[in-house]
Amino acid sequence: MLRRGIFFAHRELNWLLDEYDKGNKFYLYTGRAPSGGMTLGHLIPFLLSKWLQDKFDVELYIQIPDEEKFLAKKNIKDIEEIRKIAYDNVLDIIALGFDPKKTKIFLDTEYASVLYKQACRVAKHITFSTLKDAFGMNNDSNIGWIFYTSMQAVPAFLKSVEEGHNVPCLIPLAIDQDVHFRVARDVIDKLGYYKPAILEGKFLPGLNGASKMSSSDLNSAIYLSDDHETVIKKVNKALTGQQATVELQKKYGGDPEKCMVCQYYKYLFEPDDEKLEKIFEAERNGTLLAGEHKRDLANRINTFLDEHKKMREKMKSRIDEFIVRA
Amino acid sequence: MLRRGIFFAHRELNWLLDEYDKGNKFYLYTGRAPSGGMTLGHLIPFLLSKWLQDKFDVELYIQIPDEEKFLAKKNIKDIEEIRKIAYDNVLDIIALGFDPKKTKIFLDTEYASVLYKQACRVAKHITFSTLKDAFGMNNDSNIGWIFYTSMQAVPAFLKSVEEGHNVPCLIPLAIDQDVHFRVARDVIDKLGYYKPAILEGKFLPGLNGASKMSSSDLNSAIYLSDDHETVIKKVNKALTGQQATVELQKKYGGDPEKCMVCQYYKYLFEPDDEKLEKIFEAERNGTLLAGEHKRDLANRINTFLDEHKKMREKMKSRIDEFIVRA
Repeated sequence: MLRRGIFFAHRELNWLLDEYDKGNKFYLYTGRAPSGGMTLGHLIPFLLSKWLQDKFDVELYIQIPDEEKFLAKKNIKDIEEIRKIAYDNVLDIIALGFDPKKTKIFLDTEYASVLYKQACRVAKHITFSTLKDAFGMNNDSNIGWIFYTSMQAVPAFLKSVEEGHNVPCLIPLAIDQDVHFRVARDVIDKLGYYKPAILEGKFLPGLNGASKMSSSDLNSAIYLSDDHETVIKKVNKALTGQQATVELQKKYGGDPEKCMVCQYYKYLFEPDDEKLEKIFEAERNGTLLAGEHKRDLANRINTFLDEHKKMREKMKSRIDEFIVRA
Repeated sequence: MLRRGIFFAHRELNWLLDEYDKGNKFYLYTGRAPSGGMTLGHLIPFLLSKWLQDKFDVELYIQIPDEEKFLAKKNIKDIEEIRKIAYDNVLDIIALGFDPKKTKIFLDTEYASVLYKQACRVAKHITFSTLKDAFGMNNDSNIGWIFYTSMQAVPAFLKSVEEGHNVPCLIPLAIDQDVHFRVARDVIDKLGYYKPAILEGKFLPGLNGASKMSSSDLNSAIYLSDDHETVIKKVNKALTGQQATVELQKKYGGDPEKCMVCQYYKYLFEPDDEKLEKIFEAERNGTLLAGEHKRDLANRINTFLDEHKKMREKMKSRIDEFIVRA
């Protein structure tokens, strides 16, 4: 993902790695705001976090802000409903194989006795003006949603509070979350902690070519709970870069950057760069045809999901090894 | 205090008492936002709450919003410092003799895992516009202070959440806190709970005649920690309604409404209405002279504080019978 530019930008990663080389270990922080089932796209920051945890042997804090969507979306009426979804999401996350000894997961509402005090320290340094500019808040914004960004800031320095000395923090996130930390990094600095380093990822595109898998168009997103048939159907409808007919395709070839099947290989389903290049090349040459291309991708997705569902089942009894409450 | 109009206004007290008569018991909620030591004035809602708890045999929730002053006041830099003050205040509160079996006390930062989720439910129904009007918030207000009123709303329906059915709530408070509930009562209604009933109290005036004991003028306030000498000195400087000389005083008399010594009898130190009327009468007739008047009040205050300090010492080991954390 780093090599392929799926994580394409960063803030102060060099500093973080220099500190690591000096023996000053960082910890990771990422999160997931629950509102429904998780899709393949949601896994991206977690997959990178897992790789970073393994490579650098570091701790990972996973925030589950179970109030965020409740506060941000008018149509979500019941915060308790979100809590159930949150635990379902947690299961999808731990199914990726995180080390329970080095991974702390917390729901905001359940861990607020730790988070809220620190969020108040952050909030004191953020005015409504700042939020108007950064988040497009206005007079009709509700005061919970206005406050929320302070809660999201806390895990970026929480370990420093806990340890009583500064610990570097690296946050792998999807680019839409950057705004929270653009505001929070300055505040965290004012509080006397290290500004967190950030790794900014692209969204997995929708199968329909949309720049982000959207849960409002169910066909554009593969859910982790989708069965074989559903995956095959959805992938069959995927936008490809291919020409209108087989003949034109063979003559002019396709564009792998516009072909969602190629993109899914690139993001998640073909780890080998040489093999990926061969797929892209075949797409460009017109020697790869949409039908077999899609069949192969659907197979790979289903194999991944089968394994994922098996892990989910296995982890059901182990959630409490990860969750911290206060 | 009720008879003498110190608690001078209410919201829906009739409804609450009708419910009580029907066997639908209420609970009490009051609070104290710590920023420094407590004065005699701070005791007023607690003394009424104690009386109500005893008379009606009801539970009492005491919120200690240890974030409120931190968020509201620029000059308070350290939220941990406030936590220490909070526990000192709690000791002054429980020294009044609350029943630990019927009294729950919580600090917002320590109980946020219970409070925050409910506060989010409230916050979703309050826009920044509403706060601009009600609290005079503006673009420079910090987002913690903007959110805070949601936290103060929670104990007014928390028991209904806990019990799973609606429980009436009565809030004795000082009048400056009314604005929080003017906003919150409508929201609580929208959430499907009873609007809390409210009993609104006046401030104990400062010894200098200011309408509220001010902690910025140390001489105008009697602290619960003041020693005998300090109390005598402060009371000696009290504003009285008396004339400029003993002769004029004997001739024209004084005005008990303007005499802070008379007012302190009225608020706290002369429970007997007939005796109070005699003091007021003597003040009006000019037969009561400032010197002896002040000596007597200082004596009563010191007797009260001696007893209070003894109770404080006694309660030091019992704080945990009252505090709930989550």
